[in-house]
Amino acid sequence: MSLQTLAQQPGVAAQVPAETNGFVFNHTMLRVKDIRASLDFYTRVLGFQLIDQRDFAEAQFSLYFLAYVPAGVQVPQDDAERRLWMAGIPGVLELTHNHGTENQDGPVYHDGNSDPRGFGHICVSVPDIESACARFEALNVPFQKRLSDGRMKSLAFIKDPDGYWVEIISNSVRA
Amino acid sequence: MSLQTLAQQPGVAAQVPAETNGFVFNHTMLRVKDIRASLDFYTRVLGFQLIDQRDFAEAQFSLYFLAYVPAGVQVPQDDAERRLWMAGIPGVLELTHNHGTENQDGPVYHDGNSDPRGFGHICVSVPDIESACARFEALNVPFQKRLSDGRMKSLAFIKDPDGYWVEIISNSVRA
Repeated sequence: MSLQTLAQQPGVAAQVPAETNGFVFNHTMLRVKDIRASLDFYTRVLGFQLIDQRDFAEAQFSLYFLAYVPAGVQVPQDDAERRLWMAGIPGVLELTHNHGTENQDGPVYHDGNSDPRGFGHICVSVPDIESACARFEALNVPFQKRLSDGRMKSLAFIKDPDGYWVEIISNSVRA
Repeated sequence: MSLQTLAQQPGVAAQVPAETNGFVFNHTMLRVKDIRASLDFYTRVLGFQLIDQRDFAEAQFSLYFLAYVPAGVQVPQDDAERRLWMAGIPGVLELTHNHGTENQDGPVYHDGNSDPRGFGHICVSVPDIESACARFEALNVPFQKRLSDGRMKSLAFIKDPDGYWVEIISNSVRA
């Protein structure tokens, strides 16, 4: 569908409002049961970096902010500078850990893909989807959909420790 | 918390795996009841641009991909080129519309912030949070939390047409 046709879809604004200049889709927040397991998954398996952590001892929760840091980008060392830098970039993942959930039996959170539905998934794009998926297999990451499953052979879904779906697509080959 | 301390949190990988070079946190998917209302909200109120649409007539759903296009960036006109470009950038919002939900009475989807909880919110950062929130008020956007509510005066939450929370933070002032 051409850009011109997209711009004329019902509901789409005739113009980008000037008042939204500088707006950035900064982050997505997911609650996680066991922050250690989630940090392991998102850093060791998926390669995110932990950029910020905020602990609220009285309210018994902590926030963790992760992002991919492109090559050549220097993450600010100073805490306030780093938070300001982080607020200006897209593609940040915020994980909320309510203290103690890691000691509960069974799953604590809802992945959104069974009733009641809503949120569906996050997606990580990769340069070589075949080797990325082979590596996930080797790391014993659970799959919701392998490349070979179903009709759409160009995408996969893996599951994070809470069962949230993470779509894997290619960013180097035309889909 | 210093970068060095963050790198030593339990669960955090000792190194960024080389195999994840080129990984991008590309998008977040939310199901929406009434795509026209959602496109209006995300383009007219929040300033996203509709970059791609994929219709699955037989399966009765459509996917809409929105993003902020930074000044000076030229979105590819060719469909295949544009999809490849879009797969390589962070900060894309995917909206899934299951055809016909717009005719159902009442809310169709779950925002994740009451039981069963899971997904929490998306966040848009803005250069001038006071004027952004004043504009949302003028546009009659519902608020979950105004800047003046609660303890945290530096952030707000508005609600999209399905009730999903959209956090608003500043990307120009140290939080």
